[in-house]
This record gives sequence, structure tokens and C-alpha cells, in this order.
Amino acid sequence: LQRIAIQPSQLDDDRVLLTPSQVHYLTRVLRLQSGDRFQAIDGSGNLYLVEIENDRGRKIELITTSDPELPVQTRLICALPKGNGFDDVVRACTELGVSEIYPAISDRTLLQPSPNKCMRWRKIAEEAAEQSERTLLPNIHQPQAFLEILGGFEGDRYICGARGEYPHLWDCLERSVEVGKEITIAIGPEGGWTERELDRAIQAGFEPVSLGKRILRAITAPIAVMSLVAAHCEADKTKD
Amino acid sequence: LQRIAIQPSQLDDDRVLLTPSQVHYLTRVLRLQSGDRFQAIDGSGNLYLVEIENDRGRKIELITTSDPELPVQTRLICALPKGNGFDDVVRACTELGVSEIYPAISDRTLLQPSPNKCMRWRKIAEEAAEQSERTLLPNIHQPQAFLEILGGFEGDRYICGARGEYPHLWDCLERSVEVGKEITIAIGPEGGWTERELDRAIQAGFEPVSLGKRILRAITAPIAVMSLVAAHCEADKTKD
Repeated sequence: LQRIAIQPSQLDDDRVLLTPSQVHYLTRVLRLQSGDRFQAIDGSGNLYLVEIENDRGRKIELITTSDPELPVQTRLICALPKGNGFDDVVRACTELGVSEIYPAISDRTLLQPSPNKCMRWRKIAEEAAEQSERTLLPNIHQPQAFLEILGGFEGDRYICGARGEYPHLWDCLERSVEVGKEITIAIGPEGGWTERELDRAIQAGFEPVSLGKRILRAITAPIAVMSLVAAHCEADKTKD
Repeated sequence: LQRIAIQPSQLDDDRVLLTPSQVHYLTRVLRLQSGDRFQAIDGSGNLYLVEIENDRGRKIELITTSDPELPVQTRLICALPKGNGFDDVVRACTELGVSEIYPAISDRTLLQPSPNKCMRWRKIAEEAAEQSERTLLPNIHQPQAFLEILGGFEGDRYICGARGEYPHLWDCLERSVEVGKEITIAIGPEGGWTERELDRAIQAGFEPVSLGKRILRAITAPIAVMSLVAAHCEADKTKD
């Protein structure tokens, strides 16, 4: 069944108040007709089976699925790469289960993102959540200066350094993350963090970690990070 | 220092016989001049410090670096995604340390790759090896039918299944991979492997594994796989 993302505000008793673009997508693009069914995720962990009734949706049931969400709230602070590379970061990290993404403008960020970018990233996250069959939509924040983002995080905090003899992120995850915890990981731009940024992050409780011996691009590193966090959560569970 | 990839055949005693396009890159794009130095990797694990002498390179020394290569020979068999998505797979997996990539035409592959594609992927792998500071160039094979690729692999063999209750790839790595071993991992197309393909792979000694509870795109899955293999090799080492 096709799956679309809706806002909780679109739910009204047994109705789903579809937006014009959702109606267009369902009836024109997918060519669904009255009586056909689709699934809707409301971004808060609920998945509904919905039937099309004229140009509206009628809720059939709340489906309980095996929860595809990671048991650890995972926040990524990602320095913006140049070009459209951040699209790939948002898409792949959403598939891999990220909870929140903070796009960061670092000392070495070349790009000053246009105001439309964040809208675009949220749309990409929505599509990726649908495709990967997630029930939660990740929260994509507005881009901010890295040093302003640093404060106020609870739980384990790591900052990836491209060079330097730091412990591997995996070893740190093994040591400290438990189900239900929060984890925040900062990933640098092309060229790495400046010394000032690394120092300030360490002051804010971020522990420097390594992602291995090769230099990863700013696009690849967040995907590698999310792959490890997801595997850490889900491989451990398989063992139970 | 800037790093370029050369062929072992370009080494001639203390000379590096640069190609016209390398000369152009070094002297026009990077604006290096006689006496300036750069690094050359020969794709066989050797890294040289080279000095420009007119339009030629003079080898200064063989640099021994801390080996950035994974201790496990890692081969990926990847079903080709649609569009140019495989470019991203080649680039990111090279950064993450892959040894060989077998582009596979599966039952559900829509794309019949043009003959130029493989040249393009090799060029991308070369650039990615330089950027990520690897000393080996991954071998990018010509696209072949999936069922023809399956035979003849030694070592551990896994096939990633998007659905089904398979053990997590990480748990399998933990159980079996040791330094020096070979590992081969097959990753399916959009829509997954057909039953026939999965059966044939299992007959050929491939063990079905899971990458977690969410459905990953054919572009994201190989990157997640390589992230896990690399972390498995390198996190273990940190503990020593």
C-alpha cells in the first residue's frame, strides 16, 4: 500500500482532511479511486489505514506496526556541505532513523543557505520517512551557527574529528548508550572543524571520536554515523 | 599536500611519467611550479612524495604511512539503482574502504548501463581514493547479471534482505570476520531481490542478513554496509 505523511491536525474523528496536493498525488499521480486504500503516518508514531471517499480520506483503522523507530533519540549536528549535498544527508539519515538534524554553519562552511532550503529538506525528510516506512518524521531545524547550537543538549554528546587519535565512535556507543537515552553527534564540514570549534564543543561536553582512518566527505560522514547508531541499537536487540 | 593517483607503469626509476592531463591538473589547476611537491598513490599501497621538475615528476621518497586500508578484503555486489545513483555508491563506498565493487544487473534492475558508465565509476573511485587518503584503488568491475556474479567467492558471504527476520549484519560480522579474511556482501535493488535471486544466492553460500527495521534505498544500503564493515575492523583495533 502507498504511504503518505500527514499532520496530526489533518485528523478529524474518522476523517483525514487531505490537502489539495495530497488529493492530487493520490488521485492523479497514483490514480487511486473512491474505495481504494492507502496508509497515512501522522509523524507522531501512528500509522493509519485510510480509504478514499470522493476527495477525502476515511480512517479505517489505526494499524499497530512493529516499531521501526530507533530506541535512542539521535540528533545530528551537521556542518553544511557545499552545493546540494545536504539533500543526500537528510534523505539517507532519515532512512537510517535520525530523530533531529541541526544544519550547522561552521567556520569553514562556504554555503550561506537560502531560506527555502529548510523547507526543501523537510520535504525530503517526509518523502524519505514514507519510503523507509518510518512512523516518526525527523525534525529538521533551521540552519544556525555551530557555536550557537552547542549548548543545551542532554545525554551523550560526540564530535567527529577527521584527524587525531580519538576513540572510535563505535567503542563509545558500546560503552555508554542505553535504550531510551539521547545521543547528539556533531559532524564537521569539508576541511574539518577549526580548533576553536573543537575546543568549544569539548567545553560543552562533546567527546571527540573517530570514524576510522580514511577521510570521509561531509556528506558521507553523517550517513556512516547513523549507520553505526542504528546498528548499535538494532544488532544488540537481535541478540536478546 | 595535494595527492593524485598514478598507475604503477608511470613509475620509471626516480621519475614519475605524468600524463598530459595530470600535468594540466598540477600546473594549471593547482598552479604548482617546478620545485613544488605533491603526493602520488600508485594504487598498490605505495605513497610517494614527488617534486615537479619542468613538466615531469621526480620521486623524492616512498612515504610509509599508517595504513588507511581495512584489514578485511571487502567486496560489494550492488544491484544498480536507477539514474546516476550508483555514482554516489561508488564514491562513498570507496571513502569507506571497499576493495571491489561488482555492479549487478538484477531481475528488478531497470537500468541497462551504457558502456561508458564503468569508465565513469572508475574515475569517481580514483578521485574518492585520493580525497579519502587511501593507498589502494578499489576495483570496479563491469556490470554483469547478478546470477552470473554469484559463484566463485571465498570467505564470508552475505546477502542483505530488506524484509524477513534475518540476523543483523553486525551480529554476523562479530561472529565471523577476522583480520585478513575476505568478505562479500550483496545488496539488492529498489524493490528488493526476487525470490529466485535470493534462493540462488543462498545456494551459492550467501547468508541472508538484515540492515535494520527501516527500508533503505539501493543507494543508502551499500554505504550503511561499508560503514559497518569499516567500524567492525577499526573499532576492534582501538580496543587492543
